[in-house]
Amino acid sequence: MAIRLYDLAGAEDDRRFSPYCWRVKMALMHKGLAFETIPWRFTEKDVIAFTGSKTVPVIVDGKQAVYDSWEIALYLDEAYPSRPGLFEGTESRALALFLQHWAVRSLHAPLLRVILLDLYRHVHEKDQAYFRESREKRLGGKLEHVAGDPMKSLAEFRGALEPLRPGLAQNPFVCGKGPGFADYIVFGTFQWARSVSPQRLLEPDDPVYAWRERMLDLFDGYARKAKGYPVGA
Amino acid sequence: MAIRLYDLAGAEDDRRFSPYCWRVKMALMHKGLAFETIPWRFTEKDVIAFTGSKTVPVIVDGKQAVYDSWEIALYLDEAYPSRPGLFEGTESRALALFLQHWAVRSLHAPLLRVILLDLYRHVHEKDQAYFRESREKRLGGKLEHVAGDPMKSLAEFRGALEPLRPGLAQNPFVCGKGPGFADYIVFGTFQWARSVSPQRLLEPDDPVYAWRERMLDLFDGYARKAKGYPVGA
Repeated sequence: MAIRLYDLAGAEDDRRFSPYCWRVKMALMHKGLAFETIPWRFTEKDVIAFTGSKTVPVIVDGKQAVYDSWEIALYLDEAYPSRPGLFEGTESRALALFLQHWAVRSLHAPLLRVILLDLYRHVHEKDQAYFRESREKRLGGKLEHVAGDPMKSLAEFRGALEPLRPGLAQNPFVCGKGPGFADYIVFGTFQWARSVSPQRLLEPDDPVYAWRERMLDLFDGYARKAKGYPVGA
Repeated sequence: MAIRLYDLAGAEDDRRFSPYCWRVKMALMHKGLAFETIPWRFTEKDVIAFTGSKTVPVIVDGKQAVYDSWEIALYLDEAYPSRPGLFEGTESRALALFLQHWAVRSLHAPLLRVILLDLYRHVHEKDQAYFRESREKRLGGKLEHVAGDPMKSLAEFRGALEPLRPGLAQNPFVCGKGPGFADYIVFGTFQWARSVSPQRLLEPDDPVYAWRERMLDLFDGYARKAKGYPVGA
């Protein structure tokens, strides 16, 4: 039976905007595993209560439920060792964990401010109050105020990408010759934006731009086919 | 014949404070290669001119001169493949390159402001004018002004270490089970400070503190024996 993934959706069933769910979808494609996604909204806590998690991604693989994108990646490599690995070995796994925490701290914070109102515009009607209340509590102010100057946040986001550029100028992927989970971590962040926001994030001469194009092309254009806004110039 | 390393020194021959030279010394220890260090000062450009570099680290291995700490690490793994590897494979090498650029961008900038006047106090007399002029040009102001509030810069430095903490809470090293070049990159940054500054950088309950202790203990306490200030509480 195919793996089931509870996948955060917006007002439309096919608008999937969770950066963490995108990590998992790319990981499942990487491993070549059959899966189906189930659209899920923030307020449908009861639907996934049986898994012990209040948030997605959650996968259900036979009788096993696993949540948290990092734990899911570890699970997939352990449960399916004969499939392509998401990590080259224990060292690259440790370094990818570092990169994951860097991404959330350095990339998500400025990008959230860039796309905050676009996100709010796209969440399901029944999630709007939850989204506003939880995000305003976390960010310490009204959505409309916290968003602030999107161009300033965009400049901060572009600057924060700097440590990725030298590697992407010499290798096709963050993980070097081929994509690995560290690529899916950073790419999830971009898909988060692409799914809800028309804001152009990168200049075409940025090595991160060319990398994102390669990521959109992976697995027969799986991510490019997903509902979202054009990322190009 | 032992590898020779030109190693930045202060007023005293045995005070070695370059973070980049520290990466190389730890890498040479890691590989178990015999080496000798030659104290070098900023203004001794003529001494290393034969290598094509104006800065250290530079290693001379037989007839081969290699400069730039990253290039030296790649060289050592290529020239001595039967010795312990500095990288587990191509993926961890790509991720370590990312970490290196993160370290310079996120850690060095605030830490430089914390230790700037300590550095100046320890550089060789003949380097003082060079140090002041080059750093004031790079930093855009008088050393005494750019240093600013060291406690504010220290708080920024501690915050910037955040992406390392979850990994170091579950693994002994940045690279996981054992130390690798990514550990030496971050450790070089700490040795830079330790060699010139009495400023306490970390609280003992910080997972980075325990990691630094492990790094100081490696190779029979090689780094701990180097001239510097006690790092402890």
